[in-house]
Amino acid sequence: MTGPKPVPGPVDGVATMWGDEDAAVERILKLTERIFGPPPSGELWVGDDAAVVEVTSPLLLSCDAVVEGVHFDLAFSSLEDVGWKALTVAVSDIAAMGGCPTHAVCTMAVPQGTDVERLAAGVAEAGAEWSCRIVGGDLTSASQIVLSVTVTGRLHGTAPAVRRSGAAPGDELFVTGPLGASAAGLRNLREGAREGALVDAHRRPRARLAEGMAARRAGVSAMMDVSDGLALDLRRLAHASGVGVALFGVPVAAGATESEALGGGEDYELLMATRDPDRLAAAFQAAGLRPPLHIGACTADVSECTLEGRPMPLLGWQHAIGRPASQRSS
Amino acid sequence: MTGPKPVPGPVDGVATMWGDEDAAVERILKLTERIFGPPPSGELWVGDDAAVVEVTSPLLLSCDAVVEGVHFDLAFSSLEDVGWKALTVAVSDIAAMGGCPTHAVCTMAVPQGTDVERLAAGVAEAGAEWSCRIVGGDLTSASQIVLSVTVTGRLHGTAPAVRRSGAAPGDELFVTGPLGASAAGLRNLREGAREGALVDAHRRPRARLAEGMAARRAGVSAMMDVSDGLALDLRRLAHASGVGVALFGVPVAAGATESEALGGGEDYELLMATRDPDRLAAAFQAAGLRPPLHIGACTADVSECTLEGRPMPLLGWQHAIGRPASQRSS
Repeated sequence: MTGPKPVPGPVDGVATMWGDEDAAVERILKLTERIFGPPPSGELWVGDDAAVVEVTSPLLLSCDAVVEGVHFDLAFSSLEDVGWKALTVAVSDIAAMGGCPTHAVCTMAVPQGTDVERLAAGVAEAGAEWSCRIVGGDLTSASQIVLSVTVTGRLHGTAPAVRRSGAAPGDELFVTGPLGASAAGLRNLREGAREGALVDAHRRPRARLAEGMAARRAGVSAMMDVSDGLALDLRRLAHASGVGVALFGVPVAAGATESEALGGGEDYELLMATRDPDRLAAAFQAAGLRPPLHIGACTADVSECTLEGRPMPLLGWQHAIGRPASQRSS
Repeated sequence: MTGPKPVPGPVDGVATMWGDEDAAVERILKLTERIFGPPPSGELWVGDDAAVVEVTSPLLLSCDAVVEGVHFDLAFSSLEDVGWKALTVAVSDIAAMGGCPTHAVCTMAVPQGTDVERLAAGVAEAGAEWSCRIVGGDLTSASQIVLSVTVTGRLHGTAPAVRRSGAAPGDELFVTGPLGASAAGLRNLREGAREGALVDAHRRPRARLAEGMAARRAGVSAMMDVSDGLALDLRRLAHASGVGVALFGVPVAAGATESEALGGGEDYELLMATRDPDRLAAAFQAAGLRPPLHIGACTADVSECTLEGRPMPLLGWQHAIGRPASQRSS
């Protein structure tokens, strides 16, 4: 991958250059057909102006992006890993509502010379894993790789989607698994490791779809995925619900540090609040899932955000954006 | 806007930086609520892991992206223009199927210091114009601005969506308006112009929604939007349909050149094939639209692509992507 550089395009006026965008789209169409088969009658997938798909209402709709140098480093992740991650982090948002994914479209903005088929193969591989058909996309030039995936999802049964904002004081807090594995995996990669469970957690995150659906069946009051670190995402859930939070501990993945568990992000475990922990545990057991991990409770003091009685460390990732240039610090 | 530069992020390990992503999301939520009102009962828009929206089936689904330095230059377009364009080009894909947009989600990948509210204001302004509610998105750091918009759409009535692939030999070809205005507008901007119809065409493209719906009602056999230049998009329609094409002329926008009309792209007029031109004209008239412009016909010779009897110039834009680095030129 070359570094950022100027990219020719329509802004250069009347373009006379014939690239291979159409050829790439043709190959991606063949690749997706190989994995997902032909579209059912009445549907239309990759290759036209828009896809046509059968859906149920209400529809879940979410987009998420991964950016080179921000969410991945090609020294540590293959192009297939990048495609996998882009689809999976978008699917994770569907999991966090208690739904299951149905279709996805993917924008791939890439520098010249990028093997887009390998990116698309990773997207499609993850689509097959999460039963999410890739039905369209957009290919464009850019100076760094940006993959933006939009996933549609459905809700089984009649219960509403699980929001972030439904937690109440007294609700117990759970996560679907130990945290920090992705950050620890990246640290290990930097130190020369090239395989292992932590490295896999960084390169090939998992979406907790079965867990999200079980949690919704169990009537959890609030849920979200832990994408930016527990310390930050917990604050988001608390803020949306108007509650405080008191954790008695944080489950740290084997080989990770507590800081990585609190602030590393990209674990994609689900954070859940419930007033009926037994029902949650039973739903997980019935689905053959490992038991949810109890980490604390919601409180009535909205200013409270504590870990073992002490203030929660200010860890977690937020993108530094939104400040007008005039206010930019040096 | 600063040039490309390294961006800190989760790949730097445990992040301790607190940016203003959440504050920006909060302001964008307020902005979209001001324009679109609160979500109807049972729906959920910006601010949770995924949006929840009521839809009808089949659903149209399309994504499109605009990239700084490729699709726009901030010397000539404001951030609001960029947001407008990102939403409008995605809506244009829905128009090209004969549908109308319902909901959109938008990924905004931006360098630090970008005023994302101005981008979001442009997206929302276009959303209001095209009756497309902005229901979610993703904010992330990047070294250049990339906006990727996914739009969902619906089809009124029971006729299927209009594909690119339905044209047959003998079908007549039409476009919804003269071409080349966007490229001419950019040329004028480069030469110092700051206003006028051509400049507006470049900064604030229009989606031909009413035209697309009228064309579908009139039973056109194939349709697509002219986003990459007529010369290229015509070849795409011909290739998908398995026909040749013979044009007797190209309608050039006032102030544009024929090259700009054939290869400039970004006009977003619709290209239509029909075996019943009278019915098409009647449908446009009934809808109060300017008459479609007759440009030629489809032929049985798939190798034919001519303008006034001569080979069609090789103009039009394709992104140069897909070649592995080892095959990269220079």
